Amino acid sequence: MTIGVCYFPEHWPREQWESDATNMAEAGIEYVRLAEFSWAVLEPERGHFEFDWLDEAIEVLGAQGLKVVLCTPTATPPKWLVDERPEILQADIDGTPRHFGSRRFYCFNSPAYREETDRIVSRLAERYGDNPHVVGWQTDNEFGCHRTVRCYCEDCSAAFSDWLAEKYDTIETLNERWGTTFWSQRYPSFEAVDPPQPTPADHHPSLLLDYYRFANDSVVDYNRLHANLLREVNDEWFVAHNFMGDFETLDAHAVADDLDLVTWDSYPTGFVQDRREDDPTLDELRAGDPDQVSMNHDLYRGTNDAPFWVMEQQPGDVNWPPTCPQPGDGAMRLWAHHATAHGADAVLYFRWRRCRGGQEQYHAGLRKHDGSADRGYHDASQAAAELDGLDVAHVDAPVALLHDYHDWWAISSQPHAPDFDYWEHLRTYYRALRARGVQVDIVHPETSLEDYALVVAPTLHLMSEERADHLSDYVSDGGHLLLGARTGYKDSYNRLPDARQPGALSNLVGATVDQHESFPASVDLSLMYDGDAYDYRTWSEWLNPDEADVVAEHTTAGVTEAKPAIIRNEARRGTVTYVGVWPEAELANTIVGDALQTAGVTSTDVLPDGLRVAERDGHVWVTNFTSDAVTLDVPQGTPCHVGESKTERNDTVDVDPFGVAVVECRVDDVAVE
Amino acid sequence: MTIGVCYFPEHWPREQWESDATNMAEAGIEYVRLAEFSWAVLEPERGHFEFDWLDEAIEVLGAQGLKVVLCTPTATPPKWLVDERPEILQADIDGTPRHFGSRRFYCFNSPAYREETDRIVSRLAERYGDNPHVVGWQTDNEFGCHRTVRCYCEDCSAAFSDWLAEKYDTIETLNERWGTTFWSQRYPSFEAVDPPQPTPADHHPSLLLDYYRFANDSVVDYNRLHANLLREVNDEWFVAHNFMGDFETLDAHAVADDLDLVTWDSYPTGFVQDRREDDPTLDELRAGDPDQVSMNHDLYRGTNDAPFWVMEQQPGDVNWPPTCPQPGDGAMRLWAHHATAHGADAVLYFRWRRCRGGQEQYHAGLRKHDGSADRGYHDASQAAAELDGLDVAHVDAPVALLHDYHDWWAISSQPHAPDFDYWEHLRTYYRALRARGVQVDIVHPETSLEDYALVVAPTLHLMSEERADHLSDYVSDGGHLLLGARTGYKDSYNRLPDARQPGALSNLVGATVDQHESFPASVDLSLMYDGDAYDYRTWSEWLNPDEADVVAEHTTAGVTEAKPAIIRNEARRGTVTYVGVWPEAELANTIVGDALQTAGVTSTDVLPDGLRVAERDGHVWVTNFTSDAVTLDVPQGTPCHVGESKTERNDTVDVDPFGVAVVECRVDDVAVE
Amino acid sequence: MTIGVCYFPEHWPREQWESDATNMAEAGIEYVRLAEFSWAVLEPERGHFEFDWLDEAIEVLGAQGLKVVLCTPTATPPKWLVDERPEILQADIDGTPRHFGSRRFYCFNSPAYREETDRIVSRLAERYGDNPHVVGWQTDNEFGCHRTVRCYCEDCSAAFSDWLAEKYDTIETLNERWGTTFWSQRYPSFEAVDPPQPTPADHHPSLLLDYYRFANDSVVDYNRLHANLLREVNDEWFVAHNFMGDFETLDAHAVADDLDLVTWDSYPTGFVQDRREDDPTLDELRAGDPDQVSMNHDLYRGTNDAPFWVMEQQPGDVNWPPTCPQPGDGAMRLWAHHATAHGADAVLYFRWRRCRGGQEQYHAGLRKHDGSADRGYHDASQAAAELDGLDVAHVDAPVALLHDYHDWWAISSQPHAPDFDYWEHLRTYYRALRARGVQVDIVHPETSLEDYALVVAPTLHLMSEERADHLSDYVSDGGHLLLGARTGYKDSYNRLPDARQPGALSNLVGATVDQHESFPASVDLSLMYDGDAYDYRTWSEWLNPDEADVVAEHTTAGVTEAKPAIIRNEARRGTVTYVGVWPEAELANTIVGDALQTAGVTSTDVLPDGLRVAERDGHVWVTNFTSDAVTLDVPQGTPCHVGESKTERNDTVDVDPFGVAVVECRVDDVAVE
Repeated sequence: MTIGVCYFPEHWPREQWESDATNMAEAGIEYVRLAEFSWAVLEPERGHFEFDWLDEAIEVLGAQGLKVVLCTPTATPPKWLVDERPEILQADIDGTPRHFGSRRFYCFNSPAYREETDRIVSRLAERYGDNPHVVGWQTDNEFGCHRTVRCYCEDCSAAFSDWLAEKYDTIETLNERWGTTFWSQRYPSFEAVDPPQPTPADHHPSLLLDYYRFANDSVVDYNRLHANLLREVNDEWFVAHNFMGDFETLDAHAVADDLDLVTWDSYPTGFVQDRREDDPTLDELRAGDPDQVSMNHDLYRGTNDAPFWVMEQQPGDVNWPPTCPQPGDGAMRLWAHHATAHGADAVLYFRWRRCRGGQEQYHAGLRKHDGSADRGYHDASQAAAELDGLDVAHVDAPVALLHDYHDWWAISSQPHAPDFDYWEHLRTYYRALRARGVQVDIVHPETSLEDYALVVAPTLHLMSEERADHLSDYVSDGGHLLLGARTGYKDSYNRLPDARQPGALSNLVGATVDQHESFPASVDLSLMYDGDAYDYRTWSEWLNPDEADVVAEHTTAGVTEAKPAIIRNEARRGTVTYVGVWPEAELANTIVGDALQTAGVTSTDVLPDGLRVAERDGHVWVTNFTSDAVTLDVPQGTPCHVGESKTERNDTVDVDPFGVAVVECRVDDVAVE
Repeated sequence: MTIGVCYFPEHWPREQWESDATNMAEAGIEYVRLAEFSWAVLEPERGHFEFDWLDEAIEVLGAQGLKVVLCTPTATPPKWLVDERPEILQADIDGTPRHFGSRRFYCFNSPAYREETDRIVSRLAERYGDNPHVVGWQTDNEFGCHRTVRCYCEDCSAAFSDWLAEKYDTIETLNERWGTTFWSQRYPSFEAVDPPQPTPADHHPSLLLDYYRFANDSVVDYNRLHANLLREVNDEWFVAHNFMGDFETLDAHAVADDLDLVTWDSYPTGFVQDRREDDPTLDELRAGDPDQVSMNHDLYRGTNDAPFWVMEQQPGDVNWPPTCPQPGDGAMRLWAHHATAHGADAVLYFRWRRCRGGQEQYHAGLRKHDGSADRGYHDASQAAAELDGLDVAHVDAPVALLHDYHDWWAISSQPHAPDFDYWEHLRTYYRALRARGVQVDIVHPETSLEDYALVVAPTLHLMSEERADHLSDYVSDGGHLLLGARTGYKDSYNRLPDARQPGALSNLVGATVDQHESFPASVDLSLMYDGDAYDYRTWSEWLNPDEADVVAEHTTAGVTEAKPAIIRNEARRGTVTYVGVWPEAELANTIVGDALQTAGVTSTDVLPDGLRVAERDGHVWVTNFTSDAVTLDVPQGTPCHVGESKTERNDTVDVDPFGVAVVECRVDDVAVE
Repeated sequence: MTIGVCYFPEHWPREQWESDATNMAEAGIEYVRLAEFSWAVLEPERGHFEFDWLDEAIEVLGAQGLKVVLCTPTATPPKWLVDERPEILQADIDGTPRHFGSRRFYCFNSPAYREETDRIVSRLAERYGDNPHVVGWQTDNEFGCHRTVRCYCEDCSAAFSDWLAEKYDTIETLNERWGTTFWSQRYPSFEAVDPPQPTPADHHPSLLLDYYRFANDSVVDYNRLHANLLREVNDEWFVAHNFMGDFETLDAHAVADDLDLVTWDSYPTGFVQDRREDDPTLDELRAGDPDQVSMNHDLYRGTNDAPFWVMEQQPGDVNWPPTCPQPGDGAMRLWAHHATAHGADAVLYFRWRRCRGGQEQYHAGLRKHDGSADRGYHDASQAAAELDGLDVAHVDAPVALLHDYHDWWAISSQPHAPDFDYWEHLRTYYRALRARGVQVDIVHPETSLEDYALVVAPTLHLMSEERADHLSDYVSDGGHLLLGARTGYKDSYNRLPDARQPGALSNLVGATVDQHESFPASVDLSLMYDGDAYDYRTWSEWLNPDEADVVAEHTTAGVTEAKPAIIRNEARRGTVTYVGVWPEAELANTIVGDALQTAGVTSTDVLPDGLRVAERDGHVWVTNFTSDAVTLDVPQGTPCHVGESKTERNDTVDVDPFGVAVVECRVDDVAVE
């Protein structure tokens, strides 16, 4: 369990590099990421390469025992290249080019850009193929950032036609699968199918879904190009990519298939402002929302069997969210522990030193722009010292949360209510699991499920027979399955299935969806569950139970009869619960609590917002994302790795505001005083 | 009084058609609309026509005694046509083309598209010219939907210049009428006048108004092309078009001149969300706002002397509004009755069966997508049975509400306050009339007015001498005229008249407008009327009475003297009231109540929101758009066609939540218990 | 102290001109502005000039003793010119042209348009070179209105490259000064630098700042072209321009260097709605916010040593704000007095008569569109009579408020919080000064400061050594300097300085900025100042005092230790106070009150909002922007030029709602009863 940092030596005078390296080593830093965005300094004009500075920087760092992760610098092609080959630029939906000037303006399908990528990546890989300090690579940077997965240029149009031809073989098949008779949308040929450009009303949902798949596959292909070039030169290197948080358009499951290490970039005080529905509290502005953060940890940890890192960890205040509060005292240390508890083997802070020029001057580093230590440096040093003593195995989660990006894309193109957000809906269930201290693997629905005591699937919107069989097998083997609203609504082409919802799952569920409806936030929605009233929001289904038992009924006014809202089916050796609403937090806590009990999963009582516990390999991390100190009761004599025990016998542990404790016990041994 | 349905046999396997037809017949359905959006299946490639399926579908339906309405399929040209002749595409204001992919992307002025239209419509008309089951046609579909009346392409630019040359003869006349000396906007020629493309500040209001007129005339011409082609082949057919609700950009009065039957598409739970200012209540989400709905019935009924239908009636939940609540139990039946009460002779539900593919999968049909009966089917069957027994003459309304689309366009281009919405303002008066059970004809200002006891003109903004004389004659003949704010502000070129407002009407009104002003919603505005305080909103005029009496004075702070706000003039044998504010509901109820009394119009007390009564040919429909049951008092022995009498002597009638009653009496005989 | 009017004789029949001139003279009007927007009537086709109408209009006005100000008519080139040379059009950021149809659609860098400008301005200047009635010129109209300072066309792209080459000499220097290593943004040549067109993320802040400077310089150059052409013909004429209120993109200091007279266009009821953060009160809707208005008076008065006028004064209701309330009774008179109190030597109302055609029909004039006198005419006449008796010297302000447009641009491109508005922040300090009746010069930071008792610099964001020395010298000479947040954050290239903030000012301040942070409005922010709690907003700095004393500490929760928020340094012979927050009004009043006391500036107690006093040359204007009458105590026997004394001994003066008093005394002699 270790710490690292992202470093840009090319921004600073050569004479600072030694003291930087020394300061890193003193902080206990192990990994240093280099060369991101460096194309223009590596190749200032075509064919004229300048690698000396990078050779030297690696040498200086290596001399301090630091390990180097290099980046392919393709996120920012130099201006001379763009001027030479302007056809590499992406186009917006209305055809406006995305010009040079920031980053990520290249098209993933541009043959010209793939050629240039091959050239620079090969050259770099060869240069450092046998460098002993270089341990691995990051491909490009944050694929898809700034809404760049989807491009509408001519290269994309041609590639889309090819992609469709590959998928459907004949245009008749496409017309049939999509259902293009509707509104005379039949296509005479694959060439005739264009990307979804501006048109008076909505585009065909099957076109949209396939376009989103195609755009995603373009990134997957482009990433694979990097991975292959790098592995050709040295197959000991790991190949990683740094994904982003709460990110819809790129299927991390698909990209991860070509990676040896999965990482993401964690900025808690930014994401809580711009990628979550609610207004943040002051505590959240200072430390983030722990569930939002760990949901990304658990997602990226679950993309494949590879190790998991945080490649960029927020080091202090950042520049890009709406507002830029200072993190709470100690928050930078807290985040490193929190990531470790959720499976990270290394946490690299971004960046070493605040930048003097360019777009990120208002983004802190571990060091201030004048070179002195900033708040993050002290926090990172403390985290490094504390984590150095801990060597823990991978997270072993009892619960799986099923997630498929294609469902997200399908729902987003037909939300059916302005505030039906697929990810927020998923988070409702995730939050209820985490509030009870349960570790969760967020995995693809077709992952092997046999080891999970409970599987929660908030919305498996696109349902195939194969997927339904997979879930059915799980329940037949004694599994407990909790399904949420909008499940089984469509086939994989984004059409309605022949039968009623949940389509291929109806037998397993023992009920069908009689009606569905959605509401604005101004309307109060409620149901009765086990004799108590609870609120729900946005979405409602009227269920029609066949074999299943009614667990909750709608009590919202305006229709004459009570309608079933939640049903439970004791199916085969397991159980299936289907929740036909988007539950508010209290209802979610009740539903999830009942499901955990049925499945026999160990858990805590519902913890207050901002306080979270997580177990990894016999160690429990208690992470306090609030500005109030907390005292915990633990079994007498519990070993306390991090944090202070109030008593000699170690039966209570104090956790500071924005603080952390690591104790050796089971998660349900911990209680808030 | 009858029921119908919109059907797309081409979406479903041939083997389902017979059972569909049988189910329709069993529901009591009389009319079936076919072939909308079917061009790509009728002509899958240029010149290759496939009519067999349609022949057969008509045959199957005809065999069940169903009457067929066909559609010209021009709202959705096929992809092969667009690829061959891309010049048919519309252009947005900034020149971005509106691409293939949804519908309505063709330009009304494209010579190429008119040629193609002629070709397909002629071919279809000839094919079915003597088919005994085909009783009439719908031209295209919802002209102007998705903001497509106004196009900015090169064909439109050329056509606009021609249109202006036709209207003004010389460019000097145009310059003089518009007043182009302002900001150096003089045009050297008709060719030099462009559509209003992006420019730093507002465009000239006279240019805008003429551009809106031109764009409207383009649709009128295009519709006439269809009507002429159809009538050439068979002049027994009716030619209809299906208009939309609360729709600004297309002048239904002008289009209707070429129609034999006027229809519109009524979606109460959608319109209440996206075409009205206020947030809807839960009851309104479940059944709509009855006044919003009937205002469209009364508008389209009043476009000309033709019969009136609802061509598309919401059948359940729909896909396109912000949210998609389920209608209240029985609401689909309620809407059919409500339409009938307001003059509809037939109500066709849209659509027969929920679609499996394409943009409208989330739009209900009378049947579910698996073929089973949905809620709407039961409601439609009941409505069909109930209406089958009723044969009533046309609505005979005592009050006319004057409306001219050109006024709407002029106000919209210079609203002078963000929330001055012409249509919402009109609805304030309409609502006050309907709250008292009064039937209203919404008619063009130059309609014959002699049969109306009261004429309400909320905003006749563009005033000519001819129009002023027409109103003056009405009052001279003993008519009662209620005028609202912003009347007589402009001449027909959208310029100020020589004299003060209300310009040519000043003599009749006996007052002029001294000042006008507008306010944000955050400011409280009030006046004194007959000794009581009332609120108004948005707009205020300070009136300067000459012969007229002051009826109300402003009491809003910030100016030193009280100013006249409403005046009344006993002119000739009638009266004129001029209301210099936009009244809030309570004030509107008082003003309209006084006007009805003066005019001797029979009415009820003010009914609660959501409960409405309407008389047609001696029958009173009581329609309950709320989730509360209601009991009515009626004269003893009143015949009750629909609804249940609580007593044997028929002196009270119960109306269910979202229910309806039809009783034989006068509207003022009905009272809420 | 005099009155004028803007007149468009070309809009009205020739036979009205004499009565117009007579009515002007009767009102006491001295100046008449003519020929704005008149190009199409002066040159209806290329080379065909029609000057007769203008000759005659000047003659008619001159005959009444009126003095004429002419305008170069370049804000609206005629359509024939645009059609001939379409390359003169501006382009939006995405390349969309700004078309003919309103005004200001030409590009300042178009060589073609500079040629045409030379042609028309020379011709006009020659025509009126020796006309005895023409006393001066206005160049063009409201440069930059409708967001037109910044254009993205190809002419601008080329000119920008030239401008950069001129500034930086070599591309290496540009790359180094900007810091283009960041994100590989190095430029290979000046030609390669494009205007900031659409790109996925933010543009480089140094590019943005230089682009804004370049765009500004383009306007300065274009204005200079006019000034030079006019002065060549007659160097007795004054050359003026009419600036706009609260206007960011154009540096009035730079443009004013080429002007003999600085003017602006004052529309109080419009600006209070669309150029201020808060919702206006009803009183503000009727008269505006006096501090917002006078802040512009003080800004334009301070651009150079030239005289200062209001070129366009709101005459009644106006058409362009969101809503258009009527001004309070007397407000048009109030505004003329208020402008005079703040240094205006003439106030010209816009316009003479309400226009019948075109975009401004809803904009009042002093006369109604039917020719009769409107409310403004009576107010203007009264103001003219009252001001005619007053002949006062220039304003002598004890306090300077420092402002540099380049700071505004830098902050706007990186606000770091959605509601950090540079101008609103400046206004916080300005308002606190004006609430105590203090006159303020708003001046460029490099102005000579020696005559000011107190200098307030709310945000000197871009700090050079020279500027720091200038401020240091001021303090060394005994000056008192009040600095606000975000001062000294950047160098003049918009990069961070080597040292910590406030960079070059740190020594003078005796402290550095340890951290900065920003917050959404939903969070409560507070500090302790002299033992009392106060609120602040949006922005916070944690200060690190070296020699300075801590005056206030943050008390906002979420970090463990109190942090210094405001410090004071007794430096050399003066003092420096640094305020590390954006204070709310109460805190600003306290800080400014303390600063005034330290500096020994005479002031009143804090006056209520809407009531303001201002001294000019021994006369105190009391201006009441509220609908409540006010009574003032003044020293016994105070001469009262305007306003009514309640007592014979002149020791109280009544001020009407929206009224004014002018008394001869010191500002601190006046107190509200």
